[in-house]
Amino acid sequence: MYKLICRDGNAKRGEFHTVHGVIQTPVFMNVGTVGAIKGAVSTMDLKEIGTQVELSNTYHLHVRPGDEIVKKMGGLHKFMNWDRPILTDSGGFQVFSLAGLRKIKEEGVYFNSHIDGRRIFMGPEESMQIQSNLGSTIAMAFDECPSSVAERAYIQPSVDRTTRWLMRCKAKLDELNRTEGTVNPDQMLFGINQGGIFEDIRIEHAKRISELDLPGYAIGGLAVGESHEDMYRIIEAVTPYLPLEKPVYLMGVGTPANILEAVERGVDFFDCVYPARNGRHGHAYTSFGKINLLNAKYETDPRPIEPGCNCPACRNYTRAYIRHLLKAGEMLGLRLMVTHNLYFYNHLMEEIRTAIEEQRYSSFKKEKLAGFEAGEQD
Amino acid sequence: MYKLICRDGNAKRGEFHTVHGVIQTPVFMNVGTVGAIKGAVSTMDLKEIGTQVELSNTYHLHVRPGDEIVKKMGGLHKFMNWDRPILTDSGGFQVFSLAGLRKIKEEGVYFNSHIDGRRIFMGPEESMQIQSNLGSTIAMAFDECPSSVAERAYIQPSVDRTTRWLMRCKAKLDELNRTEGTVNPDQMLFGINQGGIFEDIRIEHAKRISELDLPGYAIGGLAVGESHEDMYRIIEAVTPYLPLEKPVYLMGVGTPANILEAVERGVDFFDCVYPARNGRHGHAYTSFGKINLLNAKYETDPRPIEPGCNCPACRNYTRAYIRHLLKAGEMLGLRLMVTHNLYFYNHLMEEIRTAIEEQRYSSFKKEKLAGFEAGEQD
Repeated sequence: MYKLICRDGNAKRGEFHTVHGVIQTPVFMNVGTVGAIKGAVSTMDLKEIGTQVELSNTYHLHVRPGDEIVKKMGGLHKFMNWDRPILTDSGGFQVFSLAGLRKIKEEGVYFNSHIDGRRIFMGPEESMQIQSNLGSTIAMAFDECPSSVAERAYIQPSVDRTTRWLMRCKAKLDELNRTEGTVNPDQMLFGINQGGIFEDIRIEHAKRISELDLPGYAIGGLAVGESHEDMYRIIEAVTPYLPLEKPVYLMGVGTPANILEAVERGVDFFDCVYPARNGRHGHAYTSFGKINLLNAKYETDPRPIEPGCNCPACRNYTRAYIRHLLKAGEMLGLRLMVTHNLYFYNHLMEEIRTAIEEQRYSSFKKEKLAGFEAGEQD
Repeated sequence: MYKLICRDGNAKRGEFHTVHGVIQTPVFMNVGTVGAIKGAVSTMDLKEIGTQVELSNTYHLHVRPGDEIVKKMGGLHKFMNWDRPILTDSGGFQVFSLAGLRKIKEEGVYFNSHIDGRRIFMGPEESMQIQSNLGSTIAMAFDECPSSVAERAYIQPSVDRTTRWLMRCKAKLDELNRTEGTVNPDQMLFGINQGGIFEDIRIEHAKRISELDLPGYAIGGLAVGESHEDMYRIIEAVTPYLPLEKPVYLMGVGTPANILEAVERGVDFFDCVYPARNGRHGHAYTSFGKINLLNAKYETDPRPIEPGCNCPACRNYTRAYIRHLLKAGEMLGLRLMVTHNLYFYNHLMEEIRTAIEEQRYSSFKKEKLAGFEAGEQD
């Protein structure tokens, strides 16, 4: 399914073929937690800003509206009116971070819903069943994502359990894909590499999950509090042990700089809530770094967020107007900010792909990073 | 500037020519209080749903971002990126309803800002200056809008003062339009008829303001608590005393039924916050009455809000999905609701115009009202 088009150093330029169309990699997936992008961005808007993959959260959709409801509506693609690829996470991360009192057992995790507090059980089979009901293009394995400060003594048995859970995920999804009436019989499973910041555990785990010959692999448990140096070190250590002919997905990462560094180390897929979250706080991404539109100096600034940017917000509105909307608490302000920031990420990935194709990734990366550092010249 | 195309009974079908384009009447103006439609609806969206006139609130823009700022940005049209007609109210209504402690004097009104409590003075000249800075297509006269339960003894002197204020508005706007550097030298002034629910005061006032030969006239002080019967009675009494060759604007009205009745009595312009406000509360307008999408029966309803509706929400999303978004508090839900409701109003006006042209307004109105009453057949 994954076709490696070319490499530039360790950076990969690929194509990932799915039943919902081809994903050009490296790619940044746009996060729509409950089946909608924050900031009132519609699926039509997403097409306009070049979004390739939408990412939704299994845990959130399970508690509301309920995955059975989504299945009844023909699956998540039909429900949210998005015909391009969708990746769903496993629900594991939310269970370990959002949910109340939880208990991890070999069979799975017992926890309380963050909505109504009711007791829920989720294990590998349940996660696969829910994701199968959602009918996403790519389902993620149910894993434990341990704290970034967890000790070796905690990490090793956790990773071993994650491996056992992965095998159960694979068996369950194979079965579900063969079941009559399934939403997407071609649903794919990505395995997730864990091991904290311990290279040897990470590498050993990468080798074991690679044997399962899954359509793709993720690096999980990073960007959860460790230093950037640790993050890059782990990516660098692990990617050589993941199959070159499969996409590598670095979960929950990150800043534009993080992405540039990770691509250089062989990562294909990214996702992060930063563009939406920062947008909601008035922070806009530009090639000259982040700017804060709430700053008084933009009060009468007639320029778009980023001069030359081709996003709908920059083509139509000024910094002064967007600042006014944000100050007045008008939803349109948030929509324009999120639209710009997602476009910025999507467009950055496009530039990254071209730079790899043209075998100039290293100089491209340096230039981009220098731009981010430079800041705006008023 | 106003061209009466035809009449059907007392219903008028007209064209109002402005420097920002022609307005086909009867028209429903879409309310964008601070220079943006609630619900993250963009000016591009407005064009898609057939919006002819945007209405902004002078008081709100005066306190934030400040009309001087808007003028510096080239006026409200440029600021909000809307090249079609804009009507601004006078600020009077907000001063009398929103603001804190206020004192009405012959020169104008002293009141406290609802944002920071600072003492503000606004009189006819100030209102015209602010609206001139905004550069709207149509400026509204600064008037007093008395309570619907006010006695004759209060209303008569208030109306007399409103007449004196109107003459000061006209003199001031004439002067501002001739001033160098003004945003819109063709800015037009609409006078406002007042008089509570007392026909004789209303008629006397209508006669007096008609003598000023303004480009248009509004009926103010209705839809503020009086009965529908009183509202219709006053409209019926007043319109014969307003010039037929000028547009009549019924301020702040109303429900689709109110509009149908008022058009029959000779009204050309309408505005109301209902489509946006109801949308935000899950209420969608349809030809078979309002439906509440938060109702459990829509949980798995695969139909659009209104089958056959050509708005972007109905063309792309189901009731089940929009209901989910509203329940989850996702902004996209509000945007889709407001988009549909504004389209519903805009489209209703289009149907009204056609019915008048085809001299079948009376039966059209009856049919429409019967539809609203019928409710949905599940």
